[in-house]
Amino acid sequence: MAFLKVVPLEKALEVINSFPLEPKIESVPLSEALGRVLAEDVTSPVDVPPFDRATVDGYAVRAEDTFMTGESEPVRLKVVGEINAGDTPTVELKPGESVYISTGAPLPRNADAVVQFEDVDREGEDVIIYKPAYPGLGVMKAGADIPKGKALLKRGTRLTFKDTALLSAVGFSEVKVFRKPRVAVISTGNEVVLPGTELRYGQIYDINGRAIADAVRELGGEALFLGIARDDRESLKALIETGIECCDIVLLSGGASGGIRDLTSSIIEELGEVKIHGIAIQPGKPTIIGLINGKPVFGLPGYPTSCLTNFTLLVAPLLRRLLRRESEVRKVRKKLAHKVFSVKGRRQFLPVRIEGEKAVPILKGSGAVTSFVDADGFIEVPENVEILEAGEEVEVTFFG
Amino acid sequence: MAFLKVVPLEKALEVINSFPLEPKIESVPLSEALGRVLAEDVTSPVDVPPFDRATVDGYAVRAEDTFMTGESEPVRLKVVGEINAGDTPTVELKPGESVYISTGAPLPRNADAVVQFEDVDREGEDVIIYKPAYPGLGVMKAGADIPKGKALLKRGTRLTFKDTALLSAVGFSEVKVFRKPRVAVISTGNEVVLPGTELRYGQIYDINGRAIADAVRELGGEALFLGIARDDRESLKALIETGIECCDIVLLSGGASGGIRDLTSSIIEELGEVKIHGIAIQPGKPTIIGLINGKPVFGLPGYPTSCLTNFTLLVAPLLRRLLRRESEVRKVRKKLAHKVFSVKGRRQFLPVRIEGEKAVPILKGSGAVTSFVDADGFIEVPENVEILEAGEEVEVTFFG
Repeated sequence: MAFLKVVPLEKALEVINSFPLEPKIESVPLSEALGRVLAEDVTSPVDVPPFDRATVDGYAVRAEDTFMTGESEPVRLKVVGEINAGDTPTVELKPGESVYISTGAPLPRNADAVVQFEDVDREGEDVIIYKPAYPGLGVMKAGADIPKGKALLKRGTRLTFKDTALLSAVGFSEVKVFRKPRVAVISTGNEVVLPGTELRYGQIYDINGRAIADAVRELGGEALFLGIARDDRESLKALIETGIECCDIVLLSGGASGGIRDLTSSIIEELGEVKIHGIAIQPGKPTIIGLINGKPVFGLPGYPTSCLTNFTLLVAPLLRRLLRRESEVRKVRKKLAHKVFSVKGRRQFLPVRIEGEKAVPILKGSGAVTSFVDADGFIEVPENVEILEAGEEVEVTFFG
Repeated sequence: MAFLKVVPLEKALEVINSFPLEPKIESVPLSEALGRVLAEDVTSPVDVPPFDRATVDGYAVRAEDTFMTGESEPVRLKVVGEINAGDTPTVELKPGESVYISTGAPLPRNADAVVQFEDVDREGEDVIIYKPAYPGLGVMKAGADIPKGKALLKRGTRLTFKDTALLSAVGFSEVKVFRKPRVAVISTGNEVVLPGTELRYGQIYDINGRAIADAVRELGGEALFLGIARDDRESLKALIETGIECCDIVLLSGGASGGIRDLTSSIIEELGEVKIHGIAIQPGKPTIIGLINGKPVFGLPGYPTSCLTNFTLLVAPLLRRLLRRESEVRKVRKKLAHKVFSVKGRRQFLPVRIEGEKAVPILKGSGAVTSFVDADGFIEVPENVEILEAGEEVEVTFFG
């Protein structure tokens, strides 16, 4: 059983960064593309509009037929047809002719302007036009809105409703996006049971399974909660193997017992390789990171605050990389609300709650559910620092 | 056919506000509760932890048995058992006795402290303790983290992963949330076809259907795109009836043709009641608002920018009310990048793009897809204003 040396956080992050994970690409219907991340540059395969299009209700004309008009000497054109939106026009305008046309309809051949009906009079078969129309009046030319071949969206764009609308406008019914990373979530511990069941004396409800699965979902990943492994080799191994089969990443959170950590490490060693066993941070010292079939497996601490702190430090950056969300800012600078003590030689992460411009340390201890629930994130107290004074500026990293 | 008078925007909003819509409540599994809005106040049905719990690995003792110790005169206690996390202990400590206990395990009867194993020596059946233990050392008392009956979450809370973790910690396997409003989305127009199909000359791809459906989803609602109604009474009526049957709200967006508006208004009048037909804003004058079986039906303009502007002004506030998101800020103040002209007597909403501290007006016209795609939102130019000068402060309302 490999009991590796405790390494600095930076070393652990380096190891995680070197994992051979690449975002996979999948095609999804446009109706399911909202919020997904585009895996290809998109250019328009069509002109929008695809044809010269009337932008008003009125009469399509040859502009030159109207150049000589003025309100004193109107021009009279023969109305030779009608084109409505959705029609495929067959008519072709000859000099002195016009057609009635509705907004959105394609112009007939030879027409280059539309005079809106408020500006004309209709007399039987004729329309009387009082003002010259310039070529292009009342018309949106083919491709004027979006020309065919125009670059529209870049690979890496997280699709909003405006983007899906744009993709719809140029005719896409499906689109290539990065597949959401699939994360298997396993809780461990003989004392841990699923919510909804009756507690026997000595049992507690699972917290980390829900917390991690939903933190993964909030980040945009897909989480599969596989259940709770008992503190025995077969139960734990079976769930880890299932996780490796169905998912890209496996996350375990330890029960209270140290035995689970030894088991986890030994099973990873059997199925793959333990890369890190122990990180020089508090909390997180017992964290395990391994690789099985090229898939990362993380053994996170059992206490909720410790678990989520280590998830935030180690797992979230990996998920953000796969989800192309690296650029998102998850830190703020605040002033410490009151003095905190740390232990010299220990690099510590302390949960804090944000109140306005202040970061309020939460001192309940990492065993408490409420210390994690009340906290917005954590601050770092470096190894060489024993005291952070009230009012000092600190950087708060949000959980998740 | 009721052709009502054009009313001010405020009147339309008043009508919408008076609609008899109440958020419905449904029970969902906790695993699907992330992001949903809680429909009940939640108090803890249990103590967390549910029992006095060891917070370290070590020996559970009666603290008073250790009061007389010092490093010079240690105390020797008999180890009468072992309790691991998940065990249901049956042992009861008598004076002079202790049990080995692991982190997370329940204390045996009569024990009130846990001395961590680093601080003791083990000699056969005995443990040797060098320092006095105070009652509560190494113990989290039942309910110390969360006492039974404690108020945890308020009705109206949008559940984050911390909230679902908390609900899991106190044993909830399902939770009551407000049902997502179901919105039927119908596009109209003879010229409009679904993306993915081949365009005949004169046809264009649907934009509004996707834009509205995904805007509804971004807000947190459920959208059902019902398809494209042709410019005939039967096709349109069938889709509106389907919408009323399956959904809470029906949204239509007009094709280019004015005929659709008359049809929509006449069908609403037949099936229910037209409440508003025409609002004194630009764009949005032809907007229709009706009620069928107590369910709102909106006929929005056909041009994408106009459609989304009216969606933002009229529909989004209603959805936010049903989704309990009224408090979200969707406006920012910026400086106008350059002069814009409006028409006196017309209350106008102009699309703008935000660039740093500037709001850049988009002047492509509402017929362009790109004017909507390039814009982040819109500004209002009041009725009595003809010119907004460059540098003037404007309020930008984000689309959606």
